[in-house]
Amino acid sequence: MRLIVPLQGIVQGRGGLILGSLIPCALFYFLQFHLKRRCSPSRPADLPRSASRSPLSTRGSLAPARLSDRAESIARPNESPYYVGLDRVSQDPFDEVENPGGIIQLGLSENRLCLDLIEEWLSENLTGAMIGHGGDKGHSGIGGITEYQPSDGLMELKVAMAGFMSKVLGRGASFDPSRIVLTAGATPAVEILCFCLADPGNAFIVPTPYYPGFDRDMTWRTGVELIPVHCRSADNFIPSIAALDQAFNQARKRGQRVRGILISNPSNPVGNLLPRETLHNLLDFAQEKNIHIISDEIFAGSIHGNEEFVSLAEILDAGEFDKNRVHILYGLSKDLSLAGFRVGVIYSYNDNVLAAAKKLTRFSSVSVPTQRLLISLLSDTSFIERYLETNRKRIREMYDLFVGGLKELGFKYVESSGGLYCWVDMSGLIRSYNEKGELQLWDKLLNVAKVNATPGSACHSIEPGWFRCCFTTLSRDNIRIVIERIRKVAEMCKPSR
Amino acid sequence: MRLIVPLQGIVQGRGGLILGSLIPCALFYFLQFHLKRRCSPSRPADLPRSASRSPLSTRGSLAPARLSDRAESIARPNESPYYVGLDRVSQDPFDEVENPGGIIQLGLSENRLCLDLIEEWLSENLTGAMIGHGGDKGHSGIGGITEYQPSDGLMELKVAMAGFMSKVLGRGASFDPSRIVLTAGATPAVEILCFCLADPGNAFIVPTPYYPGFDRDMTWRTGVELIPVHCRSADNFIPSIAALDQAFNQARKRGQRVRGILISNPSNPVGNLLPRETLHNLLDFAQEKNIHIISDEIFAGSIHGNEEFVSLAEILDAGEFDKNRVHILYGLSKDLSLAGFRVGVIYSYNDNVLAAAKKLTRFSSVSVPTQRLLISLLSDTSFIERYLETNRKRIREMYDLFVGGLKELGFKYVESSGGLYCWVDMSGLIRSYNEKGELQLWDKLLNVAKVNATPGSACHSIEPGWFRCCFTTLSRDNIRIVIERIRKVAEMCKPSR
Repeated sequence: MRLIVPLQGIVQGRGGLILGSLIPCALFYFLQFHLKRRCSPSRPADLPRSASRSPLSTRGSLAPARLSDRAESIARPNESPYYVGLDRVSQDPFDEVENPGGIIQLGLSENRLCLDLIEEWLSENLTGAMIGHGGDKGHSGIGGITEYQPSDGLMELKVAMAGFMSKVLGRGASFDPSRIVLTAGATPAVEILCFCLADPGNAFIVPTPYYPGFDRDMTWRTGVELIPVHCRSADNFIPSIAALDQAFNQARKRGQRVRGILISNPSNPVGNLLPRETLHNLLDFAQEKNIHIISDEIFAGSIHGNEEFVSLAEILDAGEFDKNRVHILYGLSKDLSLAGFRVGVIYSYNDNVLAAAKKLTRFSSVSVPTQRLLISLLSDTSFIERYLETNRKRIREMYDLFVGGLKELGFKYVESSGGLYCWVDMSGLIRSYNEKGELQLWDKLLNVAKVNATPGSACHSIEPGWFRCCFTTLSRDNIRIVIERIRKVAEMCKPSR
Repeated sequence: MRLIVPLQGIVQGRGGLILGSLIPCALFYFLQFHLKRRCSPSRPADLPRSASRSPLSTRGSLAPARLSDRAESIARPNESPYYVGLDRVSQDPFDEVENPGGIIQLGLSENRLCLDLIEEWLSENLTGAMIGHGGDKGHSGIGGITEYQPSDGLMELKVAMAGFMSKVLGRGASFDPSRIVLTAGATPAVEILCFCLADPGNAFIVPTPYYPGFDRDMTWRTGVELIPVHCRSADNFIPSIAALDQAFNQARKRGQRVRGILISNPSNPVGNLLPRETLHNLLDFAQEKNIHIISDEIFAGSIHGNEEFVSLAEILDAGEFDKNRVHILYGLSKDLSLAGFRVGVIYSYNDNVLAAAKKLTRFSSVSVPTQRLLISLLSDTSFIERYLETNRKRIREMYDLFVGGLKELGFKYVESSGGLYCWVDMSGLIRSYNEKGELQLWDKLLNVAKVNATPGSACHSIEPGWFRCCFTTLSRDNIRIVIERIRKVAEMCKPSR
């Protein structure tokens, strides 16, 4: 349009009709040329070619072989403080005896509080679980672990997992083993769902603050985009339907198609639980917009407070909503402390998603020896009951100790009922109330206090000064040390405001 | 261009200058509009929307939530005889005692000849390998298997794997553990390489006949395309550089960018080995075209003939070629009969590919208990020596038995030195010398003889009548039965020609 306006001047003026026909024709040619270039699947002219040989080699071409654009981007160092912090700890990890001046890890989402129980179980059951005892009925022996098995998981493990999920997420809801797809961790589970629900350029709405890994796991290879929708402390970080609706409409105006919403419940990083009413509203919203809803419930077995956890599965069982658009993410990394085992779950109510996801597990299968081991572990219901109960009690004890220390230091935090984190408001210590101020504080915590916490900005938090602190990799004694280290930074920062 | 020619007529004629300016202007507007529509990331007008509620539900929208285009395509049943055959066997598998009339499997690439050795080792070493014995030095105990570990594999396993690969592929070449990326099977390994080396719409050249799984593993999620280049029996199925060159140039003419060539050596399905000279020519070709080369050497430890196996690694070690474009695929599913363990290897000489591939293993990590087990297994060099030697001997015995039977029936086959297959020419039994005739024979083998062999067309073979037969899942007695079953079909088919 802007091009045409001056043209009108020329056409109306003395240059007149000849220019008036020549210039649009020239533009028309130019546009055709431009269009052709844009629409051709690739540009042969750009193909790096070299018939000449490298001086270093008798046969080498001069240009290095190119990587894909996506690989170039993935290979670059990630500058998010989330990854920088994790890297720093791996270089200088705290150890009471061997490296007491090292960095204490509050940034890694791991639970080490009940490894003693797992170790005890494994030492008694490992061999029997994996290759069976002589004469075991129904155990397929060595062939059962070495041979190809269905890539989406052994049916025996799905049955055991459905039972475990009913116990942990269920509270009345039951899970159908045939709707379970097992993956090598929850990371490929969420990626596979993205591949199934959205095409490149489509988007998912994700309420903030959210797990920093989603930016990578949901987008890198899928070409899907995330639209953060901000939740605020004033709302206890519960997503508002009005804000979701606004984000949806804005995306539509830009011509972007929203294919779903991803929620995490219990929330990572906040640790709060989504109220039943919110879940109803979210299902209503998804239904009204005709989009999918992924509910990440990977911390459902790590509820340590008094709030009621409500799985989307429970609400769907009441039959009021269209199930086809609902997909639950689960895994054993958090609730059973088995991150190294790499076991994730897609539980989908949509048959077509199940069909596609099952095929895609060929890229992310769970190792069969590990599956065998887990069939025995999850089927040992008395062990599981004891584990879950002990784990909740121990998380609660650590949580109380940790927030006790935070209270001493005068910090506010979100009262949390689930997960392995405390979401702490340290905004009182930042010099400028913005992301820069928050990152300066993060840097002091990391480099002065030698404590790696995840700054809220890494979780797309809109309010600066919040930090995610994972307290379940610590011992009781470590908590004292962490609090003392943070106190020093607090004292450094406070007077300067 | 075709649009402009009539316009010139109007401009030169009586309609003259006014039309000459108006029509191009109108076209210009139209093109801008067209361009805008094409370039917008998605088309909001297509967005399925429904504010109305479903009659079946108080809250449901009428339209079902859409899946992605790629999921719709992946979810569809695969009609390739390769998959149809595998499915049929799983429904009615042959068992000497329990189902003697069932289908005998020659279509699954598995080796069960040495499971007794693996079982013996596991029963003695399992617990110690996975969680250590009390007081073990250097073993990280239970935390070592339950906690998060680097997603591209434990360094101890990379060291053990490098040693194993030197033994199997090496023959003088050595492998650097830091160039190893471990994945949950060779399937994600080849997919990750495709993600790293090519963008959507780019292509890989793949000499035929090739493993039917590549069509799915290399393209489904990556958007990469495969260009088959046909090899012929007259050349003993060795790829010709002239044919590769022609395919490359044709792709370039269509505007498609070729980013690499994938070879398998020993070949799946043929079982032949690529001569040293061919490897030199392939490296030259890749260098001249400035493309990558992926060498799938997953059967390198299953050489059972007298031909010499030459790994690309061995040739690169001589220093004559640019290493940056070379990537070797390996895994333990074939050579150690551990398909269920899901362990694949990317060995890349390119640092940027390694950086990206390591990050992408978060979607395809090997379970840590399995890694611990393999560290012990691969480090037990006397076991490994004994296993490899016994395995080669047993494959050879079975091969000799199988081809002995084929000779009795008068079939030709490719003299094979590696892998678990026999590539058999049954073209004498097909009624019409084309794909249809081949598939009719495949159908008879499957449904009359109850033998599932993979027809060459599933491997993109250009010559009809060839079949891939995997003989390493059989017992010696089974071979007799298979040959007798094939004999019946041969007798049915021969007279009618």
